[in-house]
Amino acid sequence: MKIVTLNQILNALPAIDLIDVIEQGFIAYSKGEVVVPPVGEMIFEEPPGDVHIKYGYIRSDDHFVIKIASGFYNNPGLGLPSSGGMMLLFSQKTGQPLAALLDEGKLTDLRTAAAGAIAAKHLAPTHVRRIGIVGTGIQARLQLRQLKSVTTCRAATVWGRSQENLAEYREEMEKDGFEITTTQNSDQVAAECNLIVTATPSTEPLLRAEHIRPGTHITAVGADGPHKQELDSAILKMADVLVADSIAQCLERGEIFRALQNRQIAKEDLLELGNVISGASEGRTSDEQITIADLTGVAVQDIQIAKAVYAGLGG
Amino acid sequence: MKIVTLNQILNALPAIDLIDVIEQGFIAYSKGEVVVPPVGEMIFEEPPGDVHIKYGYIRSDDHFVIKIASGFYNNPGLGLPSSGGMMLLFSQKTGQPLAALLDEGKLTDLRTAAAGAIAAKHLAPTHVRRIGIVGTGIQARLQLRQLKSVTTCRAATVWGRSQENLAEYREEMEKDGFEITTTQNSDQVAAECNLIVTATPSTEPLLRAEHIRPGTHITAVGADGPHKQELDSAILKMADVLVADSIAQCLERGEIFRALQNRQIAKEDLLELGNVISGASEGRTSDEQITIADLTGVAVQDIQIAKAVYAGLGG
Repeated sequence: MKIVTLNQILNALPAIDLIDVIEQGFIAYSKGEVVVPPVGEMIFEEPPGDVHIKYGYIRSDDHFVIKIASGFYNNPGLGLPSSGGMMLLFSQKTGQPLAALLDEGKLTDLRTAAAGAIAAKHLAPTHVRRIGIVGTGIQARLQLRQLKSVTTCRAATVWGRSQENLAEYREEMEKDGFEITTTQNSDQVAAECNLIVTATPSTEPLLRAEHIRPGTHITAVGADGPHKQELDSAILKMADVLVADSIAQCLERGEIFRALQNRQIAKEDLLELGNVISGASEGRTSDEQITIADLTGVAVQDIQIAKAVYAGLGG
Repeated sequence: MKIVTLNQILNALPAIDLIDVIEQGFIAYSKGEVVVPPVGEMIFEEPPGDVHIKYGYIRSDDHFVIKIASGFYNNPGLGLPSSGGMMLLFSQKTGQPLAALLDEGKLTDLRTAAAGAIAAKHLAPTHVRRIGIVGTGIQARLQLRQLKSVTTCRAATVWGRSQENLAEYREEMEKDGFEITTTQNSDQVAAECNLIVTATPSTEPLLRAEHIRPGTHITAVGADGPHKQELDSAILKMADVLVADSIAQCLERGEIFRALQNRQIAKEDLLELGNVISGASEGRTSDEQITIADLTGVAVQDIQIAKAVYAGLGG
């Protein structure tokens, strides 16, 4: 078994076409070719922590992947990151362990950001006037960075709660070649931007329907549990195209789950991202449409990124 | 994360008091201090294989353990062992991965054998006249070897289906200091031995009630699924003391499951091994009693052996 450190992973990443790798995963998922058993879970009380074991494989592929992801919320007080984890890659033909990718959760962050870029690639309007980012955390940064590969727009308006976080965000992303405007008023994001990514752990809507302009695409990546919500359900109701990374998952959590509960949308309104990528479902058909992608995270993204890193290291 | 090879594991084992380590695990289990979530599973069809993910922890302990065990049944044709696996040890305080024990399934074999020795230590009659082993495979060898630490008896009668396997078994175990008699008639084992271990994948009873003599202890380790059976259910009915490694598990598989189905015993007849070890339940009280231990394998054994190997390597 090859042990791959975080540094080795980071060195292998630039040579990988993440967008293509994750797109192929979504296509296989929507075709029903991916097997993803129920997630394993351990919850610790003192100190508070949780561990999730996600695993699965693409049928007739060469590998299967087991991902172990942890969150221990007192870690920062010990000088340790709160999230951790690894991805284990095995042969689907012999069961032999091939690699342990000690990514400390970084590959999960990246595959999530890549999914945002894929949603934008297939659903954003032809001309992206300005990118809107809601949130200033790690995912809010990675999302903007990944968009570089699918749009030429380098102007962004970023919403955050704290001036300090906004200033840090601007400084970091300006180094990456973006022109950044910061705001503490999320209505400004809706007014100025026609490609918006929400990436916060909010439990209350941050964007309101009346401010969303025709032609806007919104990708929501923050709401990964049933209690999280970033978009007013009325926004989903007014959307012309409503895309889930996994329809099965979005029935149980995320923005779509909330809008279904609020009876603002119906299950029949939903398309699945893999089908939009492959062309099996029709996504945006005009620059006046409002489109929404709700990303809750699918194990096939883990499978694909782990395989790509392993292949990038010489297999 | 420390990567521990099979060789390093084998080198660390002689210094570990496996019996004590696994006993402490059973005691904690029977006290309700062990958390073992449902087993994760992937089944592959072509080539045929299965992967099981077992995980858990002892409350207020320092670690948790995730075990990945695979069986790929065409592997021998490729010159590879059919079973494989690893144990991963993590901190329960921070979630950080501490060690990957690349044991290829060997620690599972050993912790199973240790449980057999523990059952014998607490349930065998005072004077072990002769040890009976039913089966000639790896587990049948490890069981006899582990018994060395709990009985001074070095005489054994071994049953197997093939003369060739029996000869091999005798040769190997005689090197370990045993005097071995082989037989293809399992009634001979019952007639000669008062400490018997059954370790086969049989789906039909190999020992019959009418041959079992008073004072005998039997440990059954082979039946790990609902379709496996080594003991005639009438033997369980005639037993004075009936011990399960995990009552919850034995209600669903193993000898006890079969005897319950056949209405030969009742749930109320069952004791749990950890309680017998701790003294909370009374095991054998006379040398005339027939006692039976049904071992289906409990995740706390994995937790305990992984922790012990890690500690043995300097933590």
